[in-house]
Formats: sequence, C-alpha cells, structure tokens
Amino acid sequence: MVVYYDGKYSPKEEVAISPDDRGFLLADGVYDVIRSYQGKLFKCREHLERLERGLKELRIKGVETNGLETVAQQLVRENKLEGGNALVYIQVTRGVAVRCHAFPPPETMPTIYVEANAYSSPTQMQENGAKAILAPDQRWSRCDIKAIGLLANVLASQKAREAGAFEAIFYADGLLQEGTHSSILFVKKDVVICPPLTNRILPSVTRSVVIGLAATESIDVEIRPCREGELSEFDEILMVGTGSEIIPITAVHGQKVRHGYPGPVAKRLQGAFRRLVHKIP
Amino acid sequence: MVVYYDGKYSPKEEVAISPDDRGFLLADGVYDVIRSYQGKLFKCREHLERLERGLKELRIKGVETNGLETVAQQLVRENKLEGGNALVYIQVTRGVAVRCHAFPPPETMPTIYVEANAYSSPTQMQENGAKAILAPDQRWSRCDIKAIGLLANVLASQKAREAGAFEAIFYADGLLQEGTHSSILFVKKDVVICPPLTNRILPSVTRSVVIGLAATESIDVEIRPCREGELSEFDEILMVGTGSEIIPITAVHGQKVRHGYPGPVAKRLQGAFRRLVHKIP
Repeated sequence: MVVYYDGKYSPKEEVAISPDDRGFLLADGVYDVIRSYQGKLFKCREHLERLERGLKELRIKGVETNGLETVAQQLVRENKLEGGNALVYIQVTRGVAVRCHAFPPPETMPTIYVEANAYSSPTQMQENGAKAILAPDQRWSRCDIKAIGLLANVLASQKAREAGAFEAIFYADGLLQEGTHSSILFVKKDVVICPPLTNRILPSVTRSVVIGLAATESIDVEIRPCREGELSEFDEILMVGTGSEIIPITAVHGQKVRHGYPGPVAKRLQGAFRRLVHKIP
Repeated sequence: MVVYYDGKYSPKEEVAISPDDRGFLLADGVYDVIRSYQGKLFKCREHLERLERGLKELRIKGVETNGLETVAQQLVRENKLEGGNALVYIQVTRGVAVRCHAFPPPETMPTIYVEANAYSSPTQMQENGAKAILAPDQRWSRCDIKAIGLLANVLASQKAREAGAFEAIFYADGLLQEGTHSSILFVKKDVVICPPLTNRILPSVTRSVVIGLAATESIDVEIRPCREGELSEFDEILMVGTGSEIIPITAVHGQKVRHGYPGPVAKRLQGAFRRLVHKIP
C-alpha cells in the first residue's frame, strides 16, 4: 500500500514514526476520515475544514489542509481504489521533539500521515439495524475537536462489543451525547431530533448531510438536548458517520427501540443518502 | 542512545514505530517515568506497580512489568548514566493492528518502548520557587491512570508557559486537583494538606514519598479536598513529582502565596527528600 508521510508517497512498510513523535508520546494531534465513492471524495472540503479548525484550536501550524485533497485523490489512484469505495485516513501531529508537555520549538514541523483503504459500507447493519449500549462519557471536555486521544472511546467501544452491540452512546450531565465513532440522532413523532453541538459533540459531517437530506425529504428537524430518561420515548434512533453512513439502532442496552426494527424515517434518509452519494437523480 | 524496543536494545535512530501502532492512532497506552540517582533506580517497584495497575485497568496483556526493572537498569548502564542522575521513560501501547476502536485480536502483542536520558534536578526552582497558573480541568475522567493521552495537559502546560509560569494547576468541580505534570500539596498552619486520590488525581509516587517524609519530620498531614476559593489561605503550595522532586509554588495566577517565598515546610521536606535519595544518614 502506498501512503503519504513526511511529504512524500512511499510504501507503508517504509514508514517509520519516531518514538519522539508527539502523536505517539502525548496524543498531541488530530485526524479525519474521508469517504471515497467510486473514486470521488465525498464532502472532502467539509472534512478538511474540520481538520483545519482542529489544527487551529490546537495551534498546530504549517499544514496546508487544502493540499491534502490532492494527496487523498492521489492515494485513491495509486492504490487502485477508484473503482470501489474507500476510506482516506488523515492524521496530523505536532511533530517530533524532545518530550515536554508544552509546545516544542516553533520550527518543529508537524507530522502528516495519510492512507487510503478499500472499504465496504456495513449494508447488513444498515438494513437490519444494530444494537447499542449506553456508556458514561469519560472523554475529555473538548470532544468538538477530532483529536487522536481516543482511549475513552476505545474502552466504551470494547464494552459495546462485549455486550454484542456495535456502538456505545455516551451520556453526560444526564444527556445523550454521541457514539464512540458516530453521531446519534433521535426520531420522535416523525421529527428528527439532533442534540445541539456543544463541547461534548463533534460537528459531524455526515450529521450535517443527514440534516440537509431531512429538509429535502420534508422531514422536520429539531435541535435540542435529549435526556437519558427520554430513551424509551423515541420511535427510532440513528447512528450516522462517514463509515456507518446511516445505521438504525434497534436496541439500546437490551431494550428494543419501539418495535425493534429499522423505522420509516431511517429508510427514507438512507434512500436519500444513497441517491446523493451515487449521484442518482 | 540505546533504547529498548520490540524486545531488544537498539540505537534510538533505528526504532520505527508503526503508523498502525495504537499508541500513535488512538493514544491507547500508558507510561511511567522512573528517576535514577547515581545509577540507582528510585522507587522502581512503586512505579512499575502503577504501570501494572494501568495496564490492568486498560486490559493490556502480555507485559512482564517486573522485567522492566532490568531493562531500565540496563539502559542506565548502556547509556553511561550511572555516574549522574537520569530519567527512565517507559511506554506501553496495545500494539500494532488495523485501526478499530475496539480491542485488536488477542494475539496482538503490546508495544514496549523504554529510554533513559540524563536529567538534572531543577535546583534553581527548588530553591527560589516557581509560578503556577490555574486551568480548568479538561482531561478525561480517568486521570488515576497514567495514560499517554495528554493533550489537555499539553494545552494547559503551554498556557502556563505563556503566562511565565512553570505549572498549571487543574481545577474541577470547584476543587484544586493536580498539576499538568505533578501532584500539588498545600500547607496551612504547618499542616500538609493532600487532596484525596480520586479519578481526577494520579496516585503519585513522589506524593507518597513526601507524605512519608512529613511523618518522619513530625509534620502533620491531612487528606482532604481543597476548594479553589481556599487558595489565598494557604501558607505554602508544593509541586511534587519524579522530575520536579519538591518545588515550592510561590505565586498562583499572579497572586503571591503568603509572602511569595519558599516556606519552611517546603525546605524541611526538600532536605528530608535529598537525604533520602542520596542515602545520607
């Protein structure tokens, strides 16, 4: 596999991350994941804008995020992923320097690593639904930044897997926040309910797309916090994300969501999403 | 420099961390730092026990932490650090695997990386004191684990530096917790006050040592939470840690601690600490 590292394209096995990389030592970096459908990057600009915002928040300088679109395209081509679907993973860290909590000398160049892998949509879960659990939100308080420090997500995700579920939904301050690797939307009486973007919720690109699709499908959208105790009142729960697209959550913590089947709003939005990404008129 | 990586001793420049290492991708790992005085590891067992506890909490298996004492000693020898003072840095991650939040296949071996560097105690700050700032605690809620995900610490530490300070003291829930890279103790009316160990405070080895020294010095110790609003009432504030040893904090957020000089309790504890590590009877 050809990857992008240290300013050039090279075989992945030749990449040598330094043990002094601040990504390895301190989780001092951000990442993003972009979907490629049939060789075309989906919402690339939105993902790179989010990466740019993250870098700005962390004050990591010297990254031309616009140039990363060309890198992503090149990797899709070089790895012969044009004919199918793929995921492009981009990670930027504050670079290599003697370990110290505070920022390294200003001349330190950030580490940029990009790879592209073939990827298939989880069609079976999209069709039949998936289970989720609830997990206390142990993450840091800047979840609006797509930072690489994901240990709390790792632990909750593993907990979900061991419970036979695909996702864990974080709750904090009595509110349902988001999943370990997805955004969560709720449906009540034909209205899609989106928790407002706070420091505990990542501005998800797919979530924005789905909100836009709801409008074109004449489905009402309400932005408001959802209480944990409200869980049993939802007609549908949707897990949305770059890799997941739209997966209906049919059970949470062993309790069926309504009747335990993917609901009509999920199906309409999935159809609209499919038409959008495959440019079907 | 000779380091320990992948089960063997090798020149640091030959170490190639995989871009698929879960330490680099997800901050899925723990670390510890052990001090060596004149070639002798200080409180090595305590540090390795803490590492062991962290690995157990994260369910990272396959690490013989006891064997790491030999590795640390070997690195001190190989790098000719026996005649002076040094810091041994140990990092363990969940290993190399295709990126996924949940745990990798059970056969995945953890990554163990160890290095030793010459280190001098910050004697000037120990003598004259250092400044600190206050910072809201944005870390995850398992700060009792010495995890490598330190981005919140990085940002607060940089904020301290830009304010001309050496440390940032985190506050959360109205309480003073700990520093970005140290434990914080408070002194009021000749009593050393230690915040109780909670999920927001690392069980610091140096803190335990200092509490023990207080006993031998007949200084009273009280374990209780300290409110942020209590800050102006302290006679002394001490920053303690493996690298810092005992540094008196003489100002917080621009406000002098008492008269702005290192106090008598700090001096007595520093003396006792020096005698302990240099085995002066």
